[in-house]
Amino acid sequence: MKLYYSPGACSLGIHIILEEIGKPYELSLVALKEGAQHKPEFQAVNPKSKVPALDRGDGRVLTEFPVIAWWLGKSNPEAGLMPTDFEAETRCLEMLDYVCGTIHPQGFTRQFRAANFTPTEADQPKVVEQGKALAAKYFETLEKNWTGGTYVLASGYSVADAALFFVEYWATRRSGMTLPSHLAKHLDAMLARPAVQRALQQEGLPA
Amino acid sequence: MKLYYSPGACSLGIHIILEEIGKPYELSLVALKEGAQHKPEFQAVNPKSKVPALDRGDGRVLTEFPVIAWWLGKSNPEAGLMPTDFEAETRCLEMLDYVCGTIHPQGFTRQFRAANFTPTEADQPKVVEQGKALAAKYFETLEKNWTGGTYVLASGYSVADAALFFVEYWATRRSGMTLPSHLAKHLDAMLARPAVQRALQQEGLPA
Repeated sequence: MKLYYSPGACSLGIHIILEEIGKPYELSLVALKEGAQHKPEFQAVNPKSKVPALDRGDGRVLTEFPVIAWWLGKSNPEAGLMPTDFEAETRCLEMLDYVCGTIHPQGFTRQFRAANFTPTEADQPKVVEQGKALAAKYFETLEKNWTGGTYVLASGYSVADAALFFVEYWATRRSGMTLPSHLAKHLDAMLARPAVQRALQQEGLPA
Repeated sequence: MKLYYSPGACSLGIHIILEEIGKPYELSLVALKEGAQHKPEFQAVNPKSKVPALDRGDGRVLTEFPVIAWWLGKSNPEAGLMPTDFEAETRCLEMLDYVCGTIHPQGFTRQFRAANFTPTEADQPKVVEQGKALAAKYFETLEKNWTGGTYVLASGYSVADAALFFVEYWATRRSGMTLPSHLAKHLDAMLARPAVQRALQQEGLPA
């Protein structure tokens, strides 16, 4: 398998899942800041010009974080990253969808790519603040409705944790935000996992 | 079951799936334009203040379009809306994720809620144009990489079609866009389905 990633992008979550699974895989850097995602070489891999993209090693590429995470969990049952109970699997997907469909694009894309939101450069700081306020609201919603233990699902560690981790990591390391209690503990538990530390190190990111 | 929806919102896709399944369900209107999603009554149902939300009738509410669609497909196998083949199920989720995580928030939320993107009112038309350009680009990407027949999956009709439908419907009915060939045929095929017509009629939308 080969993961197309950019250091510190949401692909970090899939990188962590691959480290947890422990099977051989390669990393292929896509330099987003230099526009590599729009070049023909990468568009041949993922015409959507996004990371993560996973070359599964069977001649097929899978895109979109939630389904990549779900597919890796389902395809590697021995890793125990996807609950076998249908209701827990459903809640796992629900968290993947919320992180990738709302918290990331509404909360953090506003902060990291404010220029894509407003055509007026002077308005960018307001867009960043709005992104922070939205991210804080989403985190508060998760906090108030937390039904997990240390991890997202009461049944234990799953691929959903790798998704929640990347937005928590962004919040604390890039945005200077303070996380509510359950999320702060979740982030600490994630940072204590060797697979998470390996992924951070391989991407050149602070522990 | 009870579907919390707003007429013409993305909840239309879940409404169609419920009509396809054909089991009894109720509709509960959430008047987004009047801010009903932020009132305590609805926040008790879905603290994320979003539609669709599905009260499954077992005392539990499920949120997020992709997982609601997947759960309905998996829980009602007799309706044949979710492929039993693992690879087809994976590609079904991949389309759900792309529509709900990219085409909707990046392409159409820009067009329908431009004020949420820029703090300067005079910039809103530019945001709308950017949304249209992005939506057109996403549709072109789907067109060029179309592997389905009439429907998204080569294996036939699935819940993924209900997702693609709502953005196609928005594009043609609300945004005045022209769809590329495969998508235009897909929209026509969807509009010819009695379940789609029933859902449109129940929401007071043009056929």
